[in-house]
Amino acid sequence: MQTKSEMISKNQIKYIRQLELKKFRKRENCFVAEGPKVVGDLMKRYQPKAIFATDEWHPSSMPDATVLTRITDDELRRISFLQAPQQVLAIFPIPEGMKSEGVKSGKLSLALDGIQDPGNLGTIIRIADWFGIDTIYCSEDTADAYNPKVVQATMGSLAHVHIIYCNLLQLFQSLPPSYPVYGTLLDGNDIYQQSLSQEGIIVMGNEGNGISEAVRERVTHRLLIPNFHQGDSAESLNVAIATAITCSEFRRRGTK
Amino acid sequence: MQTKSEMISKNQIKYIRQLELKKFRKRENCFVAEGPKVVGDLMKRYQPKAIFATDEWHPSSMPDATVLTRITDDELRRISFLQAPQQVLAIFPIPEGMKSEGVKSGKLSLALDGIQDPGNLGTIIRIADWFGIDTIYCSEDTADAYNPKVVQATMGSLAHVHIIYCNLLQLFQSLPPSYPVYGTLLDGNDIYQQSLSQEGIIVMGNEGNGISEAVRERVTHRLLIPNFHQGDSAESLNVAIATAITCSEFRRRGTK
Repeated sequence: MQTKSEMISKNQIKYIRQLELKKFRKRENCFVAEGPKVVGDLMKRYQPKAIFATDEWHPSSMPDATVLTRITDDELRRISFLQAPQQVLAIFPIPEGMKSEGVKSGKLSLALDGIQDPGNLGTIIRIADWFGIDTIYCSEDTADAYNPKVVQATMGSLAHVHIIYCNLLQLFQSLPPSYPVYGTLLDGNDIYQQSLSQEGIIVMGNEGNGISEAVRERVTHRLLIPNFHQGDSAESLNVAIATAITCSEFRRRGTK
Repeated sequence: MQTKSEMISKNQIKYIRQLELKKFRKRENCFVAEGPKVVGDLMKRYQPKAIFATDEWHPSSMPDATVLTRITDDELRRISFLQAPQQVLAIFPIPEGMKSEGVKSGKLSLALDGIQDPGNLGTIIRIADWFGIDTIYCSEDTADAYNPKVVQATMGSLAHVHIIYCNLLQLFQSLPPSYPVYGTLLDGNDIYQQSLSQEGIIVMGNEGNGISEAVRERVTHRLLIPNFHQGDSAESLNVAIATAITCSEFRRRGTK
């Protein structure tokens, strides 16, 4: 069944395609999300600026007719960033960064120091959401969380996690005295044997180089995920995998 | 500096490109690996059938001149499956599956029930290697571990982990009595609170549907990774992430 189109203009198509670029997202202060799950989760929290959907899309609560444009499958293919477009593409405003707020006491947060891969960043946001970590501080050189690839990899978790881009060194300077900063480092202590609090910042580093030297100096608790591989080769864990194992260890302690 | 080419023939290029197809890999019984890390790790364990490398490639032990062909950057680009080719592409024989061997006592293994995404499969092989799990049983409908995308995602771990494609139900039937079969299921028991042995099979299910019904019936220990998200939305964990958390929990117990 072909959707009857309300027409999408060439300018609209161009506008949406340009939102692939960070520069353009910053200027327009909005980002693209796609598919019923991701768009649905974001709509629970944020007011969409525009929605383009085929007739197949049946959200649990229908958006205002002023923001919804019905389009054909062919039109959706033309605006989608996905290989297999999924019923709906929406444009949302980029949430405020809450830059000056400072860390919340009694909470765990993540700090990402130069994560480059959009898939890793999206997966980390999804992991944070699973483990009830609602704030992620990102260094300025971390990938942009509103990149379409990141948005899709979060599977809707972007709706539940605050993303704050900031200078991590300034963030650490603003922390209360003895506020714990955890980091996984090659010379760290076995994470399974350490006591881990339910308050603190967990720093995860760049895919190739790990945590940068300046940030490393501010880590107060050095952790190591031990390698159980028997043999000579130097293995490594993907940063999203390391984040999952680390968050799991922290939360496990909280349940006891 | 441009490498002086020993020439790669059109037939060789065609042959390598066809190794993207499972059908062709099965017929030829070989697969492609790329980059110094992945090729180097595989060479420690398997004898390559052919290596195509630019002059930049300096392996720790140089392969036999009969298998090595020096090629130009441009030729490498023509045969590579990577967006950014990395010095070397090698063809290895697919290792024997050891189908009749049966499970080893006193060991943990993984069983994958219909994992579809090559990236997930590669990441799971890498996780298994990290946690010292040297055997992965794959259902026949799991993605092919020798797909170039999987091989690259393993980051060389394919050299350390045995991959055995088999009928999982037949595998379970061949197990000794009371051999533990663990699976993560929505109605499972909190993994952090369960006793976990260092012998058994850990089953991970398909990305969308989880563990298939027939396999689920053979799971003797049902596990759940608890969700710490506060709120109404039904979140999920990527299967590679769930594998990492599960393996981490098993190995942690072994270190105490």
